[in-house]
Amino acid sequence: MLVDMNGKDLICTQEISVKEIKAILKLASEMKSDRYGEKYNSLLKDKTFLMFFYNPSLRTRISFEAAATELGGHAQFLEPAAMRLRKTKGGIEVQAGETIEDVAKVLDRYGCGIGIRILETAVENYGEGDALLREFAKYMKIPIINMADDKYHPCQGLADVMGMREHKGNLNGKTILMTWAHGSLARSYCSVHENLLITSRLGMNVRLAYPKGYDLPEEEIAKVKANCEVNDRKFEIYHNPDEAYTKEVEFVYSRNWFGPDFYEIGKQSEIERASKMTNWICTEERMKRTNEGLFTHPMPVDRGKEVTDEVASGPRSIIIDIAENRLHIQKAIMAMIIAGLKVEI
Amino acid sequence: MLVDMNGKDLICTQEISVKEIKAILKLASEMKSDRYGEKYNSLLKDKTFLMFFYNPSLRTRISFEAAATELGGHAQFLEPAAMRLRKTKGGIEVQAGETIEDVAKVLDRYGCGIGIRILETAVENYGEGDALLREFAKYMKIPIINMADDKYHPCQGLADVMGMREHKGNLNGKTILMTWAHGSLARSYCSVHENLLITSRLGMNVRLAYPKGYDLPEEEIAKVKANCEVNDRKFEIYHNPDEAYTKEVEFVYSRNWFGPDFYEIGKQSEIERASKMTNWICTEERMKRTNEGLFTHPMPVDRGKEVTDEVASGPRSIIIDIAENRLHIQKAIMAMIIAGLKVEI
Amino acid sequence: MLVDMNGKDLICTQEISVKEIKAILKLASEMKSDRYGEKYNSLLKDKTFLMFFYNPSLRTRISFEAAATELGGHAQFLEPAAMRLRKTKGGIEVQAGETIEDVAKVLDRYGCGIGIRILETAVENYGEGDALLREFAKYMKIPIINMADDKYHPCQGLADVMGMREHKGNLNGKTILMTWAHGSLARSYCSVHENLLITSRLGMNVRLAYPKGYDLPEEEIAKVKANCEVNDRKFEIYHNPDEAYTKEVEFVYSRNWFGPDFYEIGKQSEIERASKMTNWICTEERMKRTNEGLFTHPMPVDRGKEVTDEVASGPRSIIIDIAENRLHIQKAIMAMIIAGLKVEI
Repeated sequence: MLVDMNGKDLICTQEISVKEIKAILKLASEMKSDRYGEKYNSLLKDKTFLMFFYNPSLRTRISFEAAATELGGHAQFLEPAAMRLRKTKGGIEVQAGETIEDVAKVLDRYGCGIGIRILETAVENYGEGDALLREFAKYMKIPIINMADDKYHPCQGLADVMGMREHKGNLNGKTILMTWAHGSLARSYCSVHENLLITSRLGMNVRLAYPKGYDLPEEEIAKVKANCEVNDRKFEIYHNPDEAYTKEVEFVYSRNWFGPDFYEIGKQSEIERASKMTNWICTEERMKRTNEGLFTHPMPVDRGKEVTDEVASGPRSIIIDIAENRLHIQKAIMAMIIAGLKVEI
Repeated sequence: MLVDMNGKDLICTQEISVKEIKAILKLASEMKSDRYGEKYNSLLKDKTFLMFFYNPSLRTRISFEAAATELGGHAQFLEPAAMRLRKTKGGIEVQAGETIEDVAKVLDRYGCGIGIRILETAVENYGEGDALLREFAKYMKIPIINMADDKYHPCQGLADVMGMREHKGNLNGKTILMTWAHGSLARSYCSVHENLLITSRLGMNVRLAYPKGYDLPEEEIAKVKANCEVNDRKFEIYHNPDEAYTKEVEFVYSRNWFGPDFYEIGKQSEIERASKMTNWICTEERMKRTNEGLFTHPMPVDRGKEVTDEVASGPRSIIIDIAENRLHIQKAIMAMIIAGLKVEI
Repeated sequence: MLVDMNGKDLICTQEISVKEIKAILKLASEMKSDRYGEKYNSLLKDKTFLMFFYNPSLRTRISFEAAATELGGHAQFLEPAAMRLRKTKGGIEVQAGETIEDVAKVLDRYGCGIGIRILETAVENYGEGDALLREFAKYMKIPIINMADDKYHPCQGLADVMGMREHKGNLNGKTILMTWAHGSLARSYCSVHENLLITSRLGMNVRLAYPKGYDLPEEEIAKVKANCEVNDRKFEIYHNPDEAYTKEVEFVYSRNWFGPDFYEIGKQSEIERASKMTNWICTEERMKRTNEGLFTHPMPVDRGKEVTDEVASGPRSIIIDIAENRLHIQKAIMAMIIAGLKVEI
């Protein structure tokens, strides 16, 4: 079957089909094994991919820019601070400037595609980053790629499962433990959501572990449960870290995220609360209880808090491979949605 | 006739010939109709175009960088803040650093061309931005392109008339209404000057409308009048917005600009004064009195102040097409002055 | 003899062989004489060179980015401020963030090579910049190029001697005067060290002149002396500027540097002390006492303090040629260590 994603946006993997997910994964693997080959290196020739960073980033910026370069194109790095956008608060203009409509319609003429990154710190309420990204999409004909917003991070989710498959083969029926960890970064949900959504989509059992009170948004958990049901897989929740690491577990994703009251209590209070729960950490001892479990994480890792150095730098860690996969996944996405490359699956 | 602009600078369209203007417009149209074709995509191959932004920009940065990419080259985005330049005040050094001479002579060796943007907010007095740009030019052999200074904006003027011609054909003998508008951005003269200079150059009647006291610099108005005289066209000034919109008008350019005392009274006072004159706005009702008039503007548009949303987003608005044309115009300029492409007109 | 530097790092010219230095110089000259030719313009095709700027820069950023472009690749401009790195003070974490290990291992997967610039102002103690650069190198397989740290600046040293050879032929047996100059920039040692190390390596006599108390780090001076001894050349120190300019001198390098107590007394005190010694300046009158001496400097020049305008802009100045050579030297280095080009010497 030939999968065609030409012209589509990619905002969350839940919004594309499993076939499309598999096509992207297949193409990314081919691109990885022939990184600088001639087969794909002119797909974006002479074309401009626009990258809007409302929030700074290391991996995302470098990997997207490298992806465009490796496809023969050029990615422009843009920060809205330099853009004189109109700012509103509660619907009232607080700073004169350009509307999203005007910005989007013009960019649509210059670029072949656009990526936007906007996390929780750039907006006031949960979901506003994702909404802004969709507002851009409304005015643009060129494909839009979510480079991480306050809800989703599709490129990370795809890189996660690509790396997991490289190390353990078919994921269908295997179990991932997604566990909260303490830390001082008060982290966003986007990578966690995306991982839960895509692993459940691909037939994995999902085990979630977190201290009481640290529930993830209901709306997303409902989707993950539904994905598990469709595939007849288990969805479990644990509130004790020691119990969560068992022989069923083949992958451990240990990551801090902020509580549901984050937008009211603020970053400092969240960090203080989270920092106390030092028992929520991924250790070698816990990993040993799993089924030769592999450690996965979207990075940057908060070492000594989310995970011990022993695990993060040890042989069970596949985080660097996953980080590398961001590049290949993004090349594959660009090739399919911008250059219109079709993939046989 | 073959037009050759190899090695020339482009600081203001008034300083190049009408033939050169027409050659750039012709080439830009050809480039637009064959955007990624092989005819032009190696003109800057492996070469570096330098972009100096004393002031931030959206359209200018993206369109210049994309232009270089589409010609096979690469544009570097540079901000003088990172450059450790010598700063003087009244001729006295207030910060040790590098002289324009030294910077310019070195850049001359690295790049194939340079663009500089320096608006009124980066200098102390009217004209100092333009003067600094010319100081760079003095020390450099490579072509220099004005990416907007405090007096001129040649790429915008060329994009304006390219868009106007696309929608209404030959501009010769047609009338443009350039009208001041209220707003809270205290805007520079550069786009307005350039539009008046180039439309009068190409044989249009120029109608200027603004509240008493908002005269544009005499020096530039004298040039516009002279251009109109050469072509035997009308140059008119109105001080009532309602009277200015008539059946003769085929294009309306509604834009805020600051008063002649801006450099003394400062931005805040200017904005307060301008914000009160809410009758100075381009509306659908006024547009209806024109000869199927089209709305033009260099963007960013200050919606609700310079123009209503109804006009700006309506069928009479050609602003997005003009914004797109920035790209094609800049490709054509680079091709002619940097790569030495000759154009038959 | 065929010189192969494939995969090597370049942190200081003292750490590569004289043969390797000569190979880089030879290749750089060839690249200069055929700048946009097809021989070298695909060596980095579709590849990403990463540039990390802990400190801002003009020449270094532009010349490295242009170098990558001219080799068919793309250089990414990165500032650690946007990178969320872990910060420690005295071994204790003062800001949560990513470790060098994690950053380095990921970048290693994205780029084909990396350049890092980190000067004295970005660290607390002498040598910490150089140490950080070597820490990156420890975790990376891709070649690392020192784009100037607080100790060394290999690309500058190579560009210096390339320019000197262009103007005076073989340097063997000729004399360079490296003289301290007053000024208000409290400058780092890196360019000075590198010039002393590489000129002494290539068989020059080294004459050092500086006010008492402005000794350069003993460790580096010991290397310079040893280099001179190996080649049976003179190493001299003067403390009077008038005596230092003599008929033996063929090159004068006049440059401010801070005193050994800089890290304790701070920038302001250093500048006050140095600014008083106005007799330490390179003048036309002094240059006349040399053997048709040429003025060299890594730029930016602090005119009127390190050197008079008459000398800096006069016929004895080769600073612009040397600045240009940065580009060619860096292309040659990248070609050899990243693309694996071998050079016959």
